[in-house]
Amino acid sequence: MGPRLKGFKKLTSVDDALFLFLKELKPTRLGVDYVPINEALERVAAENILAPNDLPRFDRSAMDGYAMKANDTVEASEFKPKLLKLTRKDSVNKGEATQIWTGGMLPKGADAVVMLEHTRKAEGGMEVLAALTPGENISKRGEDVRKNEIVAKAGIRLLPQHLGLLAGLGITHINVARKPKVALLSTGSELVEFGQKPKLGQVINANQLILSAMCKQIGAEPVNLGLARDQLDEITRRIGEAVKQADVVITTGGTSVGHADLVPIAVNKLGKHGVIIHGIAMRPAMPTALAIVQGKPVFILSGYPVAAMVGFEVFARPTILKLSGIEDEPRPVLKAKLTRRVASALGRRVYLRVYVFEKEGEFFAEPIRTRGSGVLSTMTKANGYVVIPEDREGLEESETVIVHLFNKIGGK
Amino acid sequence: MGPRLKGFKKLTSVDDALFLFLKELKPTRLGVDYVPINEALERVAAENILAPNDLPRFDRSAMDGYAMKANDTVEASEFKPKLLKLTRKDSVNKGEATQIWTGGMLPKGADAVVMLEHTRKAEGGMEVLAALTPGENISKRGEDVRKNEIVAKAGIRLLPQHLGLLAGLGITHINVARKPKVALLSTGSELVEFGQKPKLGQVINANQLILSAMCKQIGAEPVNLGLARDQLDEITRRIGEAVKQADVVITTGGTSVGHADLVPIAVNKLGKHGVIIHGIAMRPAMPTALAIVQGKPVFILSGYPVAAMVGFEVFARPTILKLSGIEDEPRPVLKAKLTRRVASALGRRVYLRVYVFEKEGEFFAEPIRTRGSGVLSTMTKANGYVVIPEDREGLEESETVIVHLFNKIGGK
Repeated sequence: MGPRLKGFKKLTSVDDALFLFLKELKPTRLGVDYVPINEALERVAAENILAPNDLPRFDRSAMDGYAMKANDTVEASEFKPKLLKLTRKDSVNKGEATQIWTGGMLPKGADAVVMLEHTRKAEGGMEVLAALTPGENISKRGEDVRKNEIVAKAGIRLLPQHLGLLAGLGITHINVARKPKVALLSTGSELVEFGQKPKLGQVINANQLILSAMCKQIGAEPVNLGLARDQLDEITRRIGEAVKQADVVITTGGTSVGHADLVPIAVNKLGKHGVIIHGIAMRPAMPTALAIVQGKPVFILSGYPVAAMVGFEVFARPTILKLSGIEDEPRPVLKAKLTRRVASALGRRVYLRVYVFEKEGEFFAEPIRTRGSGVLSTMTKANGYVVIPEDREGLEESETVIVHLFNKIGGK
Repeated sequence: MGPRLKGFKKLTSVDDALFLFLKELKPTRLGVDYVPINEALERVAAENILAPNDLPRFDRSAMDGYAMKANDTVEASEFKPKLLKLTRKDSVNKGEATQIWTGGMLPKGADAVVMLEHTRKAEGGMEVLAALTPGENISKRGEDVRKNEIVAKAGIRLLPQHLGLLAGLGITHINVARKPKVALLSTGSELVEFGQKPKLGQVINANQLILSAMCKQIGAEPVNLGLARDQLDEITRRIGEAVKQADVVITTGGTSVGHADLVPIAVNKLGKHGVIIHGIAMRPAMPTALAIVQGKPVFILSGYPVAAMVGFEVFARPTILKLSGIEDEPRPVLKAKLTRRVASALGRRVYLRVYVFEKEGEFFAEPIRTRGSGVLSTMTKANGYVVIPEDREGLEESETVIVHLFNKIGGK
């Protein structure tokens, strides 16, 4: 393979790289935040949350109507109505009925509710026009959730309905997983910060903004550390500081085996474990390196934005999720037909950007023509990616592929 | 159908209801916020954003190596290397080469880059071991984006890659659609606010928290207005105020045709158009009403949490998205096999909650056994829903269905 290896002696497969890295790192949920439930949307439950009581807390009516004893309505019908005495007490005796609204607490002694539509006003009370069975039109206490039932499992991301259930149960605060802090450092003497005017030959750093946004999307907290020049001492010092203040460190740039291969060298100067994997059998993101410094993961990503994104997706994302207490959170997938043949190199796993669209009820995936991993517009033109495995030399036209979606169908 | 209509004279189909409502409302994008791009993640582009310049801004090297004239390498090979003079100038003449790093600006006069691996140090300069074609290993100016090309279309939600592209182009601020303000009012004298201790017979309001979270998930801004008692004057006044301070109003409770049918009456007291649709041929959420007050949409949803969620999903969500400048944003879908038969009433559209799981590479959808639209735990046990159309009396076991996902596969 010679030149295609770009100086790497040996490339590790994606699966081996992630497996070996996670085996060393052993990432587990970080600390816990105790938050009010109205701030807990999409946070991760840090432990199983149990119901402190039944929900509903009492038997209640499922209808607008009248509560009574079902036994008082035996054989009642439109032609043979049963007359009941109306009462306003909070209990019902034999021969009595009391008006009740949807959601209202069932009065003592009552065991059924008749709908308004099955009643008729009558002198001395009201007439029931239908026979009821005990429990009819009643929501029983505990019907939704029973006391001590698990209402949210540890490790789930809390959705609107979880919050509603917690509120209904009277829970106001819960423990959620602390958000991992992810320090982002971009290396490259040619870079200027977003917002600065580049001189000729300078490049505005896009990676920090991209990775910061990708962190936010999975509920992590980005810490932007700005730029470092291509200088070993500076990079070493900056990564050393980053490891102290964050749970995860991500660098971009300086991973090729040329002059700028400073980041892996810098990381190795910071002690155990240092770089665990460098050079991965994938495209893009081949020069990615995975490291551990003082027990914290350090992802050394390419300076090319598309390669940085793929490196984040494949290695940083699952690690950060585990630190958030989430075992796994796959993107939505979809089966689609490939619109044209795509070639790939045997022995590399390829992350192919595709644009999925629907036509006559069928989904199609159109490969985006790439011109290198620096071409970020290929990521805005795509709405998903397809993985071409290492043992394939490409994909055929009309082949059914699994697309991992990062944008909606038709979205671009 | 008698009693099942619960007093409604006529039910409108879901499609007709939404069509008629949107035809009257004619929702379009609200105003515009001018925001820095590092705060624009998942905001909606308010207009087409054009590239102010080419990206990259100059021809640059795609490799670590040496820049030169391709013509100086004709017939070069490992056995017949070409000697070139090394220069440090920012231009290259015939017979000269200059060192260059990945991403570096191509010096004037050069039209190709040779990889480090294809060179050898030699006295008086360096030797090239391969013949180059003009443009080789060069990222051309404008290769990613050309000046005036659209980099983000009006109406798209901005992803990390869009922000990166904007940053790279030197754009620091953009116009995004203003977030719709959605006022949430819960009616019901039996309700207490989340955080309060309910007395016997009282119920903690879960709807406001649920709908507030559903608004946030689509980028709208909830305005919590708390509770209103079941009293016509109070409800009328509160909705009148809500319409003044928000773009959308959502009420829950008080939509059945019993005593508590106060919200539609209150809305009609507030003038044109008033209630447009009341009673929809669907399950749950049948008593939903759709109204317009002073040109603003008012969604009158059931007090039952599951019905409120379905009413929001089917009517409020698409309307709020249009006010956000998004034409449509379907949830991810998936084809799955139904694990058991489900019955439904002809003439109603049913939103069936299901739990999707994967088994031996195939997806299955397990219907959640429902016990009424008050049972919120059915929504935490589900990860998606299936629509049973009006012309079906149910779905068969093993039938392939389309699931609309609101949580990950395996998530509950």
